[in-house]
Amino acid sequence: MTAKSFHPPVRTLMGPGPSDVSPRVLEAMARPTIGHLDPAFVSMMDELKAMLQYAFQTRNELTMPVSAPGSAGMETCFVNLVEPGDKVIVCQNGVFGGRMKENVERCGATPIMVMDDWGKPVDPNKLEDALITHPDARTVAFVQAETSTGAQSDAQTLVKLAHDHDCLAIVDAVTSLGGSPLKVDAWEIDAVYSGSQKCLSCVPGIAPVSFGPRAVERIQNRKGKVQSWFMDMSLVMGYWGGGAKRAYHHTAPINTLYAFHEALLILQEEGLENAWARHAHNHLALRAGIEAMGLQFVVEEPYRLPQLNAIAVPAGVDETAVRAELLNRYNLEIGAGLGALAGKIWRIGLMGFASNQTNVLNCLGALEAVLSDMQAPIQPGTAIAAAKSVFGAG
Amino acid sequence: MTAKSFHPPVRTLMGPGPSDVSPRVLEAMARPTIGHLDPAFVSMMDELKAMLQYAFQTRNELTMPVSAPGSAGMETCFVNLVEPGDKVIVCQNGVFGGRMKENVERCGATPIMVMDDWGKPVDPNKLEDALITHPDARTVAFVQAETSTGAQSDAQTLVKLAHDHDCLAIVDAVTSLGGSPLKVDAWEIDAVYSGSQKCLSCVPGIAPVSFGPRAVERIQNRKGKVQSWFMDMSLVMGYWGGGAKRAYHHTAPINTLYAFHEALLILQEEGLENAWARHAHNHLALRAGIEAMGLQFVVEEPYRLPQLNAIAVPAGVDETAVRAELLNRYNLEIGAGLGALAGKIWRIGLMGFASNQTNVLNCLGALEAVLSDMQAPIQPGTAIAAAKSVFGAG
Repeated sequence: MTAKSFHPPVRTLMGPGPSDVSPRVLEAMARPTIGHLDPAFVSMMDELKAMLQYAFQTRNELTMPVSAPGSAGMETCFVNLVEPGDKVIVCQNGVFGGRMKENVERCGATPIMVMDDWGKPVDPNKLEDALITHPDARTVAFVQAETSTGAQSDAQTLVKLAHDHDCLAIVDAVTSLGGSPLKVDAWEIDAVYSGSQKCLSCVPGIAPVSFGPRAVERIQNRKGKVQSWFMDMSLVMGYWGGGAKRAYHHTAPINTLYAFHEALLILQEEGLENAWARHAHNHLALRAGIEAMGLQFVVEEPYRLPQLNAIAVPAGVDETAVRAELLNRYNLEIGAGLGALAGKIWRIGLMGFASNQTNVLNCLGALEAVLSDMQAPIQPGTAIAAAKSVFGAG
Repeated sequence: MTAKSFHPPVRTLMGPGPSDVSPRVLEAMARPTIGHLDPAFVSMMDELKAMLQYAFQTRNELTMPVSAPGSAGMETCFVNLVEPGDKVIVCQNGVFGGRMKENVERCGATPIMVMDDWGKPVDPNKLEDALITHPDARTVAFVQAETSTGAQSDAQTLVKLAHDHDCLAIVDAVTSLGGSPLKVDAWEIDAVYSGSQKCLSCVPGIAPVSFGPRAVERIQNRKGKVQSWFMDMSLVMGYWGGGAKRAYHHTAPINTLYAFHEALLILQEEGLENAWARHAHNHLALRAGIEAMGLQFVVEEPYRLPQLNAIAVPAGVDETAVRAELLNRYNLEIGAGLGALAGKIWRIGLMGFASNQTNVLNCLGALEAVLSDMQAPIQPGTAIAAAKSVFGAG
């Protein structure tokens, strides 16, 4: 084959991530590369860290971006905090709880699974039962915002339960950070990870993490070395820790960090609470349109994530064909279901830069047109007006 | 602190990497983000893979970029090929052989160290002795191009020795790929990893890897799961493997892959042998200037990497001050020594896009000016002419 320079089509990204990236972020990323030990770069790292602490609502010193995607952020939390022989209680209500289980097993530890239906939040009572049954468990892990279902769990309550039973809590905040409330210090979360490409609307490839004082103490008291050299926080912090002197660990992804710095700057300019409110408002408008069409949400209202809307595929509709039509006719990407929900749902993201009125209205219009053409059982002609009435009331 | 958009200074990157990035690569990276399962993106991945096979000179199907920096590429090779209880012979002649040892230990295996002095190549006789002494070893690992010293080892000979003793060979080609000869198939290398930010002159954050048929067979016959979920090749290949259907594993670093695609395209346009010749030629010019100044190379000529030149710091010269002056007065970054060579050497990179006549002459001029101002024991006024005479003869 003869390769040519790659010019991607211009899409609107309303799937489960990556979300649309602001031109400001793309432009920042394209600035000239400098060295990872350049004093100018080190100053940028300090700013980035402070803004990341703000996004996480934490003063944790051990707050930094892992130089790899969100799933490496997950693995960083597990390999540093879990030791062989440990018991870890994993709450699963979607794909990513299952990935946590894989991580626990690969650390040589035993996962104790607390299962909830996909689309439901984690049930605190089940977690409490597991904690009572397994008093030797050292860690609890759960997903605050399940990207595979759009369900939100009550992180504060789950963390408190973990602490009441002398466990540390590892929290997956991949889809929540920047899009809906997450308060690492107020909720006393011990370890948390996220991704760059969801509600922060940065390019993919960076996984912000933060470790609280109990987690740091556990890392310092480990019996053995962390099984991953690349993800060993005790080594990485020689580079990301404060002070003028930075020890080389690995070569940081310089330009992606320019992009991440810009994305965090945009969040700071808007204000975290304003960003949460914007995500909530756009969700309400999308919901009005979706319900006007006669489509159903998968998750019950109190547990719905505003930034990730799981919609049931109507009976008889070929969900793959719908997504292909949206992509081909409208350059619009929405997400498919994963695992147990594959073929049964669509996932419509309203994340970060992509969470705006134009996208809500375009998505509703495109979805209505495609479904109507396929003679799907929907109520046409009402979705846009329903959404607009919410925006009008904003 | 009040953060602002980060505008890096414009540097010339002549350290051990990252190297200067072509404007073409920066521009490609800033194109609009699309989804990691978008058909347009999947086509780009196929092109990228074919060009990466060309760069590695391999037909290995299992050739792809790991979504993380070079040190994660190293770890990917070790965690997939090494199992607990294995014996691995690690040849060390610099920093990165030591990092290999760390990887072996963290896989629960036993490293057998074959030590050579820093700045020397790996001695094949010592490797052969170790293979005879340890007939139960399953793997040999070495660095083809030691980034910490600029020494090149004879990869073909070392791999053949490994095979003669029924071992697989893992080769670190972080600094060689694209800059000096590396022939994965002809030399029958079983597993190789590199970085994006050296002689390919892409931004940092991507680690190309390739696994040959013996390595694939070993991965398929593993007794246990790979300890890293993120780096488990059997899972990653569901996404990077051929065919139209790609299974989600993790979210690929989309825009960095645009950049990597463009960097590989530039290499293909130039031609691999032409790139090797250019690196060799610019090294000769730099060498002429360095020697005219009266400075000494650390590595003997037959083993010198053209893309990474280790120069001994003259007696009485404050090496840190010299680098600071080069950065502040000339926006020129060169590298410091690492580990045993810290404070004793400079590392001058002539890698990829940065390996050109302008950089050679600017670097010699700046180094001469700074050293003269510090009254260092050098021969002034001859370096530029010496280098130009090499270019004139080109």
